[in-house]
Parts: sequence; structure tokens; C-alpha cells
Amino acid sequence: MNVSYIGLGAMGYPMAGHIARHFSTGVWNRTAAKADAHAAEHGSRVLGSVREAAEADLLITCLPTSLEVEALLPEVLSGARAGLIWMDCTSGDPVASQRIAAKLAEHGVRFLDAPLSGGTAGAQAGRMSVMVGGSEELLAQVRPVLQTCASTIVRVGDVGAGHAVKAINNMLLAVNLWAAGEGLAALAATGGIDLRAALEVINASSGRSNVTENLIPQRVLTREFPATFALGLLAKDAGIALDLSRAAGCASPAFALIESLYRAAKREVGAEVDHTAVVRYIERLAGTEVRA
Amino acid sequence: MNVSYIGLGAMGYPMAGHIARHFSTGVWNRTAAKADAHAAEHGSRVLGSVREAAEADLLITCLPTSLEVEALLPEVLSGARAGLIWMDCTSGDPVASQRIAAKLAEHGVRFLDAPLSGGTAGAQAGRMSVMVGGSEELLAQVRPVLQTCASTIVRVGDVGAGHAVKAINNMLLAVNLWAAGEGLAALAATGGIDLRAALEVINASSGRSNVTENLIPQRVLTREFPATFALGLLAKDAGIALDLSRAAGCASPAFALIESLYRAAKREVGAEVDHTAVVRYIERLAGTEVRA
Amino acid sequence: MNVSYIGLGAMGYPMAGHIARHFSTGVWNRTAAKADAHAAEHGSRVLGSVREAAEADLLITCLPTSLEVEALLPEVLSGARAGLIWMDCTSGDPVASQRIAAKLAEHGVRFLDAPLSGGTAGAQAGRMSVMVGGSEELLAQVRPVLQTCASTIVRVGDVGAGHAVKAINNMLLAVNLWAAGEGLAALAATGGIDLRAALEVINASSGRSNVTENLIPQRVLTREFPATFALGLLAKDAGIALDLSRAAGCASPAFALIESLYRAAKREVGAEVDHTAVVRYIERLAGTEVRA
Amino acid sequence: MNVSYIGLGAMGYPMAGHIARHFSTGVWNRTAAKADAHAAEHGSRVLGSVREAAEADLLITCLPTSLEVEALLPEVLSGARAGLIWMDCTSGDPVASQRIAAKLAEHGVRFLDAPLSGGTAGAQAGRMSVMVGGSEELLAQVRPVLQTCASTIVRVGDVGAGHAVKAINNMLLAVNLWAAGEGLAALAATGGIDLRAALEVINASSGRSNVTENLIPQRVLTREFPATFALGLLAKDAGIALDLSRAAGCASPAFALIESLYRAAKREVGAEVDHTAVVRYIERLAGTEVRA
Repeated sequence: MNVSYIGLGAMGYPMAGHIARHFSTGVWNRTAAKADAHAAEHGSRVLGSVREAAEADLLITCLPTSLEVEALLPEVLSGARAGLIWMDCTSGDPVASQRIAAKLAEHGVRFLDAPLSGGTAGAQAGRMSVMVGGSEELLAQVRPVLQTCASTIVRVGDVGAGHAVKAINNMLLAVNLWAAGEGLAALAATGGIDLRAALEVINASSGRSNVTENLIPQRVLTREFPATFALGLLAKDAGIALDLSRAAGCASPAFALIESLYRAAKREVGAEVDHTAVVRYIERLAGTEVRA
Repeated sequence: MNVSYIGLGAMGYPMAGHIARHFSTGVWNRTAAKADAHAAEHGSRVLGSVREAAEADLLITCLPTSLEVEALLPEVLSGARAGLIWMDCTSGDPVASQRIAAKLAEHGVRFLDAPLSGGTAGAQAGRMSVMVGGSEELLAQVRPVLQTCASTIVRVGDVGAGHAVKAINNMLLAVNLWAAGEGLAALAATGGIDLRAALEVINASSGRSNVTENLIPQRVLTREFPATFALGLLAKDAGIALDLSRAAGCASPAFALIESLYRAAKREVGAEVDHTAVVRYIERLAGTEVRA
Repeated sequence: MNVSYIGLGAMGYPMAGHIARHFSTGVWNRTAAKADAHAAEHGSRVLGSVREAAEADLLITCLPTSLEVEALLPEVLSGARAGLIWMDCTSGDPVASQRIAAKLAEHGVRFLDAPLSGGTAGAQAGRMSVMVGGSEELLAQVRPVLQTCASTIVRVGDVGAGHAVKAINNMLLAVNLWAAGEGLAALAATGGIDLRAALEVINASSGRSNVTENLIPQRVLTREFPATFALGLLAKDAGIALDLSRAAGCASPAFALIESLYRAAKREVGAEVDHTAVVRYIERLAGTEVRA
Repeated sequence: MNVSYIGLGAMGYPMAGHIARHFSTGVWNRTAAKADAHAAEHGSRVLGSVREAAEADLLITCLPTSLEVEALLPEVLSGARAGLIWMDCTSGDPVASQRIAAKLAEHGVRFLDAPLSGGTAGAQAGRMSVMVGGSEELLAQVRPVLQTCASTIVRVGDVGAGHAVKAINNMLLAVNLWAAGEGLAALAATGGIDLRAALEVINASSGRSNVTENLIPQRVLTREFPATFALGLLAKDAGIALDLSRAAGCASPAFALIESLYRAAKREVGAEVDHTAVVRYIERLAGTEVRA
């Protein structure tokens, strides 16, 4: 299977590297220098255009939002032959994915959404989780490619379902992170409480989460906030989750509030900082600092 | 060390059982039949009154709220000798605990708050987590007793700190549970998404928490909602956490919203049901049902 | 000026009646019996189709949502001559209106949005408020028609601006109504407070609003909740306001929360009841009843 | 009737002036210079102490919060004779007022809470609104005094009811103001909308309130934010309203959210600025400015 990979960002670059070790892989990136570096490091081929990328058996995209994915459509269709499979690993919008899939189907191109979780560490280690929206049969075809870079591959439904589950996963991350921030800020502002000890016991108790077990001790208490997943992108995903919930007719007051708070946080502490730096904003609301 | 245990509820009954295997233990319960059963099952002694309970070296209480704890004060003081240690394992109110400790100190009685986490399963297995507020020296004295029933014992600060951390832990539980409920409801209402698969992949991703890993698959997707920790008590703990945050001068919009939603949920689905049954209320807001 | 009026609902029926007294007016309604009644009562002409309606100088629409307006486009375009003015009095969606206007402009048809406020009482009395989005020149042409039924006619911007301001107005109504409900419920649940007296003094104080001055005493304290403006439509308008705010990049936590609460209320107390019946839902959250 | 007035702030100073024109009035203020100025301007007598103030027939207090009122208790009781009436015009806490009244009753002193609305303009014009908590008979005795400075005097219930209604009134002000801020910010951020025209038509429509009719045009659109009623005090009143609602067992999500947002706003734009300057905070959340 011949693979093209578009989007060599923090997740895409290492993922394409794992794939290139097992499949003939061409890469394309808006900033061409990254593609050159990838070819040098991972033995992939640099592709000349999106159109050329579309000539593969499998086209993989991993871009900031569905807007950038949808913008590729005309050029992909100009190069694609019937039978092309397009797997989008962007943390995208389920509605956009369904629209893209419908348009592609008219040209005999099949689409699945396969967003990634696991962070840059998981991507580098080849141990990502992938939530797949698309037919079982299509997943069977791309599974060997995914197996080069992922340890958990789960089909959650038809096209769009992967993006839906990813958006909800990231909204849960956003909510859990915000709540942990408010909680630690309240303990810090109360005074006389050992935050590391508090976190240790919470992590042995019912309130624990990936946020309290990993993000807070590694990124917040260290005050390092290493920028691997941008606050602006998490805010965008929270927006997709809220849209999904509203489109399904749900009343979801917590999602609605949290989405607006991340909008505010993004504005105040910046879209480019690590998502855990939302705690800096929570600290301002609380008038304190979360330090161990 | 001679121990008295007051409050043989879902957590207290098994905890006192573990202690009785290693220490001479008297038990007292408002409903006396439970004390009789405990003595028969665990070899503890049935105490005749709170006053008699206060004559031990260590008095342990585990009651629904700090109100019930504070109500014991006069009778405890009537029976206590100077040197008594009172360890309160209730999920209590830090402000009440500081008030109780100050009053007891006037009579030479020392107090620590040591709320429990781990659920009834943890209590039965003797593998609870305990968050302790009180002096290191006092904790050193009671640690052998706690070691009979807990696998994690952490001092988080002075009197009240244990209750503060417990309240925040339970608020995180409340928020994470609510968010998971909204998320699964949105996926269910969207349709075409396999909720068990979605949960599996979330549990391999950044949005995972104790809620998604344990509570949702074991209690919600099974539709069993086994009543081990009452919704009304979780709502009460959320209120303590909000009070704590406000008293410390923090603005905590998420805690404020979630506390009010649990109040509403308690009213609509009942205070006595399991806390996970809050999902039934979230389903009403969403107009759907979370079934696998 | 020859006028066609489509949509003889609670606002449209009386509005078209005022217009018919001064202009030659044809009417069309999905339920034809209403058009017949209007012709009999107000001397308007019954039109045979939307296409026929489009042959007038001025086409006025007043429908539940922009969806119904947009659905008329093909038939209107099939009948319209260049020069037609289409004034949409629906409480519509600014984005839809801009899309409609752009499509119409290709065919030489000009569009303005002119949503109405004042309720059915204002419509019957010919004393509505109209917030107009569209060019000054176009408003000048339709002003004589609006003057037959409105006492306040204000141009707030270009196409879509009328709908934007209407959505914000209705969101303010939604928020103010919800807040008044929570406030009166808190006073009722506290007990010993004379709600009519409280309302009287609030209406002489800084917390007063159209809600406390008119809606609460006339519709809520009487427990009549007369159905003139449906809860479902107010919830829809709140959604438009939230969309507007989010599309403009704003973080608006209060709008976000209130929109979700109206979704929940609509589900629980019904979309067809009067919007003031949202207080019935607030009473459930509060566990009390707002009675004088 | 001999009157003592304690607390010559923005409301108290002019109120005591009106009273002094009709009753023998002594004044006391922590900053004595204000009392001297009042005596010079309004012909009142300067009192030497709180104890001396307590020797009158009627003691009136008008202080920032109930904390300052409660702190006067020992000194008032040291000077008061049985039969003294104490009328507290502070925007106080109903629970504190009931506690004060109970303590005073033991000494034959009667208490009523009579918070004021109308702003400094209303206080200067002698046209305030007063919401009274206390017996009808007691109100009858003080009514002649209130009539010198108020145009609306309403008994809303027993002791504490005045403060309860005032807190709710001010919470409605807080909510309506926040909502108007979010609404105007959304329109401003959308662009192309004439905010003065929008406000004009909203004020002829269902979304109007004291906020949109008076505060926004006079204080916000002018960008003057004249400091007559401090943001910190409105935040405090919102807290009292939330406490009242929670103590009565209500779930009040909107109050809960708004209270936390005012806490945050107070921290960011200052407690001393005019309450309408909360719009400066809303503008930051929205990334825009509300200018006409």
C-alpha cells in the first residue's frame, strides 16, 4: 500500500515516520522544509503537491481543523483515481467530515475519520489511540497502516463518529482540567494545605483523572506548561463538542459554560500556549497561584 | 490502644471491622441493631452510649455530615478524659472541624479530620485512601489504626485540611461525572455511535478519569446504579467545596454551576439514589438515554 | 404600493390587518382558512400561491424561523420581477438573512430584515417596535407601510442587523425572565415574604425590567401563562443570540448557560406553552412555587 | 421623635439631611469630618459616640455590610434604653439581621431592616424606595421619618425580609447588567450595527430593563462609569442573594454563575469602580468595546 501524508505537525511528523518504516510513504507539508527534514530523518519521499499526494492508495491528512482539510478537496479530486482511501486524522468536525465524505463518494473516493489521542509522547512512541469513523471494511484496509503507530484502534461508528468521539474526549479533558484547576486554586487560596499531598491522595481517590494523574503534576506544578497541545486547539475542540451536543438537541449546561470559559482563557493567556496553561487563567479568577 | 467507633454506615461498618481485628474496639450506632450485628460479625463490643464511647483512647466518628458530628460534642465532652484523640472520618466541613477542634482543645481533647475515599468496595477490602488534617504527631499515634484499613494515608495539612481536600476530591468526582454524562448523552443523541467503543477509546485517551474507567461502565451502562454513595451526599460535598472556594475569595464558575445542577438533580431523581444516577437527570436534559 | 403578506400568525395576522387598511394587500398562509378569515375581517385579498405573492411591489414574510423563509426562495424567485422588495419580519437568523439577500440580489430583488417586538398586544394595537436591517433608502420606501402598524421604527444596520438586534433583545428577555424567576423562587422558598410587595418595590428599584413590571405580575403571579409567545421560539432566539456571539468570537458565559437552560425547560414544560411558563421549570429547580 | 444616624456615605449623607429638616437628628460617622460637614450643611448635631447615638428614640444605620452593623451591637446596647428602635438601612444580610434582632430583643430594643434603592440621585432627591422587614406596628412608627426621604415604602415581611428583597433586587440588577453587557458586546463584535439605535429599539421592546434604559446610555456608552455604587458592593449583594437561595434549598444556576463572574470582575477591574464598569470586564471576555 502506497501512502501519502499531508500535515507534518506535532502529531503528524512522528506518525508519518512510523508509517514510513513499513510502507512506501510520500509526505507533503505547507512549510516544505519540514517535508525535507522528514525525508532525511525517516526515509519518506517529498511530494510536489497535494495533487500528487492524491495519487496514492491511501491519503492521510492531519491538519489543525476541518477547514484546512476541506480546502484540499478540489486539488485532491483533481489528482485522485477512483479507489483512493482518504483517512483524516485531524481533530475535526463531524459535520464537515460527512460533507467531505459525501462529495468524495461522488468521485469514488472513500473517506474515514480517524483522529488521534495520546499526545506528542504517544505519537513518538507509536502508541496512540485512534477513534475511527467509517465502515468496518475500510478500517480493515487501513488497519495495517494504523498498527505501525497506534496501540488502540477502535471503530466507533460511521463517518463523523470518530471526530464526534474525539471532540467529546477533548471536552472531557477540558472540563476535567478546568475543574482540577478550580479545585487546586481553592486549596491554594485556603492556605495551609500541601498541594502535592492533596494531589497524591486525590489520585488514590474517586476524583482522579488523567488530568490529576499526569497533566497537573508534570506540567502545572512544575510551572513548565510545555507547549505540545495548544490551548486554542482545545478551545476549538470544545466548540465542536458543544455544537455536536446542541445539534443533537441536548441541553448541556456544563459544556456550554466550559466552552465559553476556554474562549475567554484563550483570549487572556494566548491561543498558542499549552492547554494546561488554562490554569494560569483560573488562577487569575481565584486570585492565587497553584504551586506545590 | 482502645478504640471506640461511632457510625456503622456503608463505610464505617467494614472499617470498624478491620480495626477490631487488631485493636480492642467498641462500637456505637444510632440504630443499635447494627452495633449488635457488628459485634457478632467482627468481635467488637457494643457500647451503651456516646459518653461511654468517649472513654476510649481513640474515638472515631463516621457520620453523614458535620452536623451530626458537632451534635455529639456535649456528650463526648461529658465522658472524655484529657488525652482523648478524636478522629473524624466523616466527609465533613472544614469550618465545622476547626470549630470542633477549638472547643475540644479547651478540654484537652485532640482532634483530627481523616475523611475516607475508596467507596464501599475499598472499605471492605481495607484499601481506602485517607486524607488527614491534623498534626504530624497526632497522625503518628493513629496511623497504626488507619493501617488496618487503608492503603494510602496522606497528611494534607492541619485540622480541616483533610475535609477540604475530601470536598475538592468529591467536587472533582461530581464535575467529571457530570461532564461524562453530558458527553455520552450527546453521543447517544447524535446516533450511530457505539458507546462502549467510544468509552473504550476515551479510556485510552486524554479525557479519561475514574468516572469513565469505572463508574460509567460498571454502574451507568449496566443501568444498575447500585446505591453505595448517595447522590444527596455528593451534592452536600459539592456544597462544601463551593463554600470553601468562596470563603477563600475565589471565583469558581464551574464549581458554582455544578453545585446548583446537583441540587436540581437531587430534587428530581432523589437524594438516596446512587450518585451515578445523576446521569438519569442529565439524560432528561438531553432527551436521550445512555445505553450501550 | 402593492403588498403581499405571507404568514398570518399571532403577529402577522393583526399586522397585515393594519397594512390592509392603507394599502392594497394580498395574503397567503399555509393554513388557507386563516387567509380567508383575514380577507373577510380586514378586506385583504387571498393569494393563490407564494409565486403570486411574489408579484407584488413589497413582499412581507412573518414566519416561525428563517428555515421557513429560506424555503420560500425558489418559488419567490420564480414569480418575482426585478425591483421587488422583500421585507422579512420573522425573528430570524442574521446569517440566513445575509445568505438570502445575496441570492436575491443576483435576481434584482432587494431584501431587508425587520423583526417585530411588542407582542400580540402591540401588534393588535398597531404599536409595535421594528428593528430594521437594510439600506436607508430601502427603509424609506417601506416606512409608510411600517407606519401603519408600528410606533418605533429604527434602522440598526445593514441586512442581518435587524435579526441580530432582535436576537439579542430576546436573549435579554430570556435572561431577565430567568433571573426574575430564580429571584422570586428564592424569596418564596425562604418564606414569610410578600411576593407582590417585593415585586412592587423591585419595580421602584434598580432591578426592574419589562419582565418584573409586566410579565411576572400579569402572567406568572396570576398563574395564567397565556400563550402568546411560545417558549420554544424564545429558546430558538436564545440560540441565535448565542450563535451570533460565538461567531463574533465573544466569550459569553451567561448567554451560554441560559441558552442551555431554556433548551432543558422547553423539553420539560413544553415548546408550545407561553415563554413565561419557563418559571414553572425554575420552580421545579427551586422546589417551590411563585404565588402571590 | 429623636433620631440618630450612623453612616454618612453616598446614601446616608443625603438621607440624613432630609430627615434633619423634619426631626431632631444627631449624626455619627467613623470619619468625623463628614459629620461636621453634615451638621454645617443640614443643621444636624454631631454625636460623640455610638453609645450616645443609641440614646435616641430611633437609631438609623447605613453601613457597607452587616459586619459593620453587627460590630456596633455592644456599644449600642451599652447606651440603649428599652424602647429604642433600630432601623438598619444597610444592604445587609438577612441572617445577620435576624441574629441582631434576636439579641436586641433580649434588651427590649426593636429592630427593622429597611434597605434603600434609588441610587445617590434618588437619595439626594428624597425619592428613594425602601423595602422594610419588621412588624407593621414598628413600620408605622418610623414611617414619618422615612417619608421625608422616600417615595416608595413597602413592608415585605418580618425582620430580614427587607434585606432579602434588597439582595434579590440587586442580584437582578447584576444579572440584567451582565446580560446587557454580553449582548452589546456581541453586537459590537459583530460589527456594522449602530449600538445607540439598537439600544433605542430594545428600550421599546421586551428586553428592556432599568439597565438598558438608564445605566447603559448614561454610564457605559458615555464611558464615564461614574462611581456611585461600587462593583465590590454589588458583588457582595450577589453573594447574599446566592446564600439566600441556597439556604432556602433552591437550585439557582444563573445566580451561581453570575455571582462567580462578579467575583472575577471585581478582582480584575477593581472593587471600588462603579458597578457598571463590570462591562469593562465583559468587554475583555468578548474582545471588543461597547462604544456608540
